[in-house]
Order: sequence, then structure tokens, then C-alpha cells
Amino acid sequence: MDSFKNGWFTEQGVLNSDSVAVSIKYDRVLHREKSQFQDILVFESSMFGRCLVLNDAIQCTEIDEFSYQESIAFLPLNCHPHPKKVLIIGGGDGGVAREVLKHPLVEDITQCEIDEAVINVSKNYFPSLSCSYADPRLKLVIADGYEFVKNHKEVYDVIITDSSDPNGPAQCLFERPYFQSLWEALNPGGIICSQAESYWFDLKLIKSMYKTTKSIFKSVTYATIAMPTYPSGQIGFIIACKDQTVDFSQPLYKFSSKQQESMNLKYYSEKMHTSSFILPTFVEEALSKE
Amino acid sequence: MDSFKNGWFTEQGVLNSDSVAVSIKYDRVLHREKSQFQDILVFESSMFGRCLVLNDAIQCTEIDEFSYQESIAFLPLNCHPHPKKVLIIGGGDGGVAREVLKHPLVEDITQCEIDEAVINVSKNYFPSLSCSYADPRLKLVIADGYEFVKNHKEVYDVIITDSSDPNGPAQCLFERPYFQSLWEALNPGGIICSQAESYWFDLKLIKSMYKTTKSIFKSVTYATIAMPTYPSGQIGFIIACKDQTVDFSQPLYKFSSKQQESMNLKYYSEKMHTSSFILPTFVEEALSKE
Repeated sequence: MDSFKNGWFTEQGVLNSDSVAVSIKYDRVLHREKSQFQDILVFESSMFGRCLVLNDAIQCTEIDEFSYQESIAFLPLNCHPHPKKVLIIGGGDGGVAREVLKHPLVEDITQCEIDEAVINVSKNYFPSLSCSYADPRLKLVIADGYEFVKNHKEVYDVIITDSSDPNGPAQCLFERPYFQSLWEALNPGGIICSQAESYWFDLKLIKSMYKTTKSIFKSVTYATIAMPTYPSGQIGFIIACKDQTVDFSQPLYKFSSKQQESMNLKYYSEKMHTSSFILPTFVEEALSKE
Repeated sequence: MDSFKNGWFTEQGVLNSDSVAVSIKYDRVLHREKSQFQDILVFESSMFGRCLVLNDAIQCTEIDEFSYQESIAFLPLNCHPHPKKVLIIGGGDGGVAREVLKHPLVEDITQCEIDEAVINVSKNYFPSLSCSYADPRLKLVIADGYEFVKNHKEVYDVIITDSSDPNGPAQCLFERPYFQSLWEALNPGGIICSQAESYWFDLKLIKSMYKTTKSIFKSVTYATIAMPTYPSGQIGFIIACKDQTVDFSQPLYKFSSKQQESMNLKYYSEKMHTSSFILPTFVEEALSKE
């Protein structure tokens, strides 16, 4: 299938198959470029608002991005007793940083994005995401995430990896050497949260990431969220603690309903935190064998 | 977009928009007919196995049907103290009956399906679903579900409505008179569970169903599950009790791990039961206003 045809944008395939496709009717293409690292596309659609696409895969749409950004930020942050220093790898659209900046215990954020073009596109077309780049607490580094992590030892309390799929510049962010470097870059008690695809379509990859992470970190789990514009409508995260046994399903920091409101949270809540760690039987069984 | 083109089947649109589409690559079409009530299609795909399509909307695929069938059956059954007499409206593929028949407390099941052609297609192409029709505890009635329910008063402990979308023969199953008739057909303490679409794409419909049901039943809630081949990857159920205050999130009947295994459950568990009732903040807020 063509990715553009007769007013439709089509994302075809998932990691292990090209037999499924999701299409969105678009009103107009706002931006298209080939950056040093990938194809970048922005289009406007009546149903999902503005949509950011990297290498033909939808990264976020204005209508549902909150589910992903809130979850990848607050699931790890609220499991750490003092998440002062946070590193974000990837996340060029700025949405994850926007959420991390809302957290009352966070003091210092570094974001390392490989592709400056994504940041510029977000600044031009997604002000509700890129607003984070104006915050003085955020230090932005344009560099390869893996190289950056390798050069930092015992610096961060939480490291969030908001990567695209493992078939472009993000490939190395799904492999053992990266997880080993994450372990080393964490302070004692440190926690990671990495984008880890869909249990419906990518269970093999999840099992492999889970097994790798378990051999390096003390506690490891997979959390699931609902995301209608990602293939299968579901995506998850590998969350792991460096050196302590952690029950990730029970947040240490709980937002009050007043905080929940002032932070404008639309998906995440204390209850949603807990339920993210409850997995269908077939997923639990698959992971328990690793 | 054409529903069949170049080896792809495409389901276009959701209830309130035609701006999104999901496509599945198919190997071959096994069956196509226009029944008295709807278009019926069966195709084989390498990724999802055999797929049943009614009026161009995917009803079930062999790969993920367990999530829907287990949940629509056990969420209501396990909230009832003695679910002896069960009525299934719709569910022509036989999958819901297959799960209901597994429950140790169920003694008697009636299924009322309007379209016998769907049952025959399932018997021919989906033996793992239609196996339920061979069970002597299942009484099958070919009739209009609404008419059937209207003619029964205080007969059933649990009534499950496994309908297609409200734009074909199932339209009336989403409206007030039907819910009033369900209330009357239930025994005291009776519980209903009705297919209630996606909170991402159909929140307006869910709010309306919730409001209607709340004005008739004593306790009402919405439960959510993950289903990769339905639009948005998420679908839910309106679950309600006739005349008692029920905390649906806490099952009265809990499957042991031995039962869980012998029943071959792949999605549902006691924990998944509870988590199905935990909703994203924007959904909770929308329903709390009704």
C-alpha cells in the first residue's frame, strides 16, 4: 500500500509483519523533509488533529498523545522516592519533557535527542508539545543517545527512553549494550522506563528486552497503556530498578486530585498507574518464562 | 477506500467518523454472502488467521477473539452470586457461548441470534468458536433479540448482549426500550453486560448508554479491554445490576489457577477483572457527569 494515496496516509506493517495497516484521512500535509536520520512528516487530519510521522510510523497525534506522554513520565517518576535528576533519551517532539517538568520532585532534566530536525518541526507545528523547550530546567543535548549514556556514570535518578521503533536510528536503544550503559548511568536506586512496543504484535521483542533487562537490573516489569493511533491500540514500557526490589504497581508519590487537575492529567491517575502493571494471562505467562 | 483492493481488506470508519481505517492483508476469501440481515464475509490472513466480517466491520479473528469472548462472559458472570440462567443476545459466531459454557455455576443457556446465516458460517469456518453449538446445555433461538427479551419477565440471572455496531440489525440493542426490557427480563439481583464500543472513538455513545442504563438499573459501570483488531484497539462493556449496589471490580467468584488453566483462559484473570474497571481520567470524568 502507498503511504499517501487519495487523501489517506497509511502506516503499513508492524515489526514482524507487513500484513496490517492503519490509515488516517488527512486534510493537508504541513511539512515533509528527509533529515540526516529519517523521513519527517506532519499532516493535519480532522479526526486526530496534527500528526507527526517518522519513517512512515505515526509518533503522535494531538488527540491521543497525552496517554503515552503521561504514562512514560509518571510510571517511573512516581516509583522513585526522590526523582531529582532525570534524563530523557529521544522524545524529540517535547511531549515527555512537558510531563516530566510538571512533577514537583524533579529538579533537573537533560534531554538527548539525535535529530534536531524533529525538535524544530515540533517547535513549528506542535506548540502544545514543544512548549517544554522554553523551560530553563530543561537542558537539551543534540547527540546520539547511546553515546551520551555511555559517557555518564551514576548521574541520574530516572532515565526515560522515548524512542521510535527499532528499525531506524533507535535500533541500538533496544539492545543489551544500551541497557548495560543505562544501568551504569543510574544513581543507586535509579529507575529506567523504555518504550517497549505492543504485546499483541511484538511479544517476541518484549520477551527479549525483558530477558536482557532482567540479567542486568534487580527488578524488571512491563507496563501497558492504551494508544489508539499505535498499531494494535496498545503499547508498553520496560520499567526496571537498578539495585532494589520494587513493587512498581504501587506508586510512592501519589498525585492529589488537586495536583491531578492543575497538571491537566487526562489519562494517568494513581489507579491507572496500578492497573498498567496488570497484564493479560498470555502476556504474564510469556514473560514468566524469561 | 475500497474494502477489497490488491489483496487487502479494509474496514473504514468508526461510528462517528469515516476518517480512519484498518487494513488486513488477506490470503484468500473463503466465503461471501448477503444474508437477510447483512453482508457476511470470511477471509484467511497469515497474521490474524480466519476473520469474520459483518457489514464491512471485523467481528472476530482467530488470533485475538479470546480477549473479547472471555471478558464479555466472565466480567458479569463472576459478579453474580449464582449465575444459573444465562441469556446471550447475538453472539452468532458462538464464541461467547463457548466461554459461558465453561463457567461451573451456569446451568442453562439460551442464545437468541437474529441471523442464522452467521451461525452456519461459523459452523463451517470457525470450529473453535462454533463448538459451543454442540453442547446440550445451550438452547438456540433464531429470532430478533429485542422481541425475545420483551417476551420474558424475571427469567435470567445474567444477560449478555454481544452485538455488532449500532448501524445495522443491532441498532435497537443500544436504545432505551431494549435496556428497559432487559431490566424486566432479569431475576432479582440480575446483571447485564452489553457491548459498548470504544472510549477513544465513541465516547458520546458510551455516555448516552451509561446515562440511559443508570436511569433504569441500580448499579452501572463501564469496563474496558484491549482488542487489536477493533478500531482503536480498545472496546468496552456496559455492565449493570438490576436492583442492588454492586462493586463490579471485585469478582464474587474467583477462578483458581487450576480452573484458569483447565478453562484455557488466555486474557481473563481475577486481576484483569479488577483492572478492566479502572478507566483513564478523561473517561472517568466524562461518565461522572452523566
